Amino acid sequence: MDIRELRTPALLVDAAALEHNLATMAAALPGARLRPHVKAHKTTALARRQAGHGHRSFTCATIREVEGMVAAGLGEDLLLANEVLDTRRLGALADRARVTVAVDSAETVDAAAAGGVREVLVDVNVGLPRCGCDPSDAGRIADLARARGLAVRGVMGYEGHLMLVPDRAERARLTAESMALLARAAADVGGDVVSAGGTGTYAENTVATEIQAGSYPLMDTAYGATGLPFRPALTVLATVVSAAPPRSEVRPPWVVADVGLKSLGMDHGNPTVPGATVWFCSDEHTTFAPDEPRSVRVGDRVRVLPAHVDPTVALHERMHLVDGDEVVETWPVDLRGW
Amino acid sequence: MDIRELRTPALLVDAAALEHNLATMAAALPGARLRPHVKAHKTTALARRQAGHGHRSFTCATIREVEGMVAAGLGEDLLLANEVLDTRRLGALADRARVTVAVDSAETVDAAAAGGVREVLVDVNVGLPRCGCDPSDAGRIADLARARGLAVRGVMGYEGHLMLVPDRAERARLTAESMALLARAAADVGGDVVSAGGTGTYAENTVATEIQAGSYPLMDTAYGATGLPFRPALTVLATVVSAAPPRSEVRPPWVVADVGLKSLGMDHGNPTVPGATVWFCSDEHTTFAPDEPRSVRVGDRVRVLPAHVDPTVALHERMHLVDGDEVVETWPVDLRGW
Repeated sequence: MDIRELRTPALLVDAAALEHNLATMAAALPGARLRPHVKAHKTTALARRQAGHGHRSFTCATIREVEGMVAAGLGEDLLLANEVLDTRRLGALADRARVTVAVDSAETVDAAAAGGVREVLVDVNVGLPRCGCDPSDAGRIADLARARGLAVRGVMGYEGHLMLVPDRAERARLTAESMALLARAAADVGGDVVSAGGTGTYAENTVATEIQAGSYPLMDTAYGATGLPFRPALTVLATVVSAAPPRSEVRPPWVVADVGLKSLGMDHGNPTVPGATVWFCSDEHTTFAPDEPRSVRVGDRVRVLPAHVDPTVALHERMHLVDGDEVVETWPVDLRGW
Repeated sequence: MDIRELRTPALLVDAAALEHNLATMAAALPGARLRPHVKAHKTTALARRQAGHGHRSFTCATIREVEGMVAAGLGEDLLLANEVLDTRRLGALADRARVTVAVDSAETVDAAAAGGVREVLVDVNVGLPRCGCDPSDAGRIADLARARGLAVRGVMGYEGHLMLVPDRAERARLTAESMALLARAAADVGGDVVSAGGTGTYAENTVATEIQAGSYPLMDTAYGATGLPFRPALTVLATVVSAAPPRSEVRPPWVVADVGLKSLGMDHGNPTVPGATVWFCSDEHTTFAPDEPRSVRVGDRVRVLPAHVDPTVALHERMHLVDGDEVVETWPVDLRGW
């Protein structure tokens, strides 16, 4: 099928760029050295491609993602790298899958035990002001977990504040500082897992036993300055629905495409339209001025680059794997919701 | 059911605020004077409430919204206030519903005729750089449409750039200027419909025969400065999943709730947490500092106000109508997608 037959807006994934990204990462971090994060694509068919490249353990951000991965037969070793209190749904999976949950407090330890979860990692704060206990508190949390009958596999800690540091040497130095906190906590906690890192630090993080990278298959434009070897693979296909007619002398030559706030993650700002300047987005529209004023016409298809991939994917029901203008596969984005 | 039994994140709609908003608008613009825009809530159950207040004609932004409204039995008079080229899906509804489509170019006129659409409005640009033909071109577009066998019901034009002008008198003056353009186009086009306006200008727009207001049932925090008589009705229920433990002296007293970029429209910026300062949002998290440092604990439920309602709603599968902490109804957000 040609992309002209797709309804717009539509998520497109460039098959060659995706394969390049998956192969490049699998060469750098083979097998269990990578624990791919599914939150970035929310698509079990894409996770299955990652499994095809040798990765059998995955990271999730939501209970729904864990449930969906189990249902897809990808539940060999799932980490919910997030604190949750509603753990009964996870406990219900225990006989069909291996599910490990992050804990960082007595409350989350209690919830894990009460819900029938069997294994946990102690989540340690390594500099990003978000979840994770103080490093000095990690041993105590581990003891609490063991006292509740939970197996403690080790620690996790996410240096998310360092992913976009542009200079690689500086990124490496800061990552080492951050991971020194995690290594000390790991010594207090025990276990053999040190789970950390992301696409931005996959090559610099030498402390983690496994890297939780999520963005690398589809990539974000924000990573453009970091010199990473991965290629942007995701665009949103749009149809131009309105344009200043050639006879108008008064109206500036802007055009309008049918992608907007309901099809683009906007927390990193406006999307990019190659060969044009984006003015603004509305619910279902992006208004932009082409560099060549008469080059874009009503009915044309354009590929828009969202500023942030993860929340963009969460707005779409499916993604289309494309080779040029040919749709080679269509995958449901089946891990949405909570 | 108590809201404590809901999975989070969860959309909550305050039943009393919703009813106040619906009744206030119906009193100001009864029956067909209002053509409620469903894009703001994407929920046929809420549209049915609007119909219960006397409004039988609705505005849509996407083909899917039109299809869903027809399927819900609300297809008496639907306006797709947007240019589309993929019109066959609309033509397929023609025997079951009255569907009118906006056109602003020869291409969109041709598409409407080819797809089996029967009625159109000529969309006129009234100052917002988005869709709509030049006002001087409206008569020509109408002639093109009639020549293709389409019935031309009149004109539409959206003064979206004026919705948030804080001073009411200034908003009224600018709206009158903008609508003078639409009135001239209406005289060239013919027909009896002049469809325009929104929640911000519903009281000031005296030219439109019908107002396309969408935000008024749920309301946006951005309208707070405009002095409108509608109340914010929508929040996102969250669970606090992580917090600095009381014994920590080092860590600042921030807490983390389970709403983030995947459950909040972010184009207007960060959400608001009453009694707290929001630091930042991640995919599934909002980090915030409570004004009273020890007042928020792991497991607490908090109601977060999204900065922009429309794209927030599009991220959720359902919304819960609540009376205090009691869930009185649960509605599917059934008009999502395209």
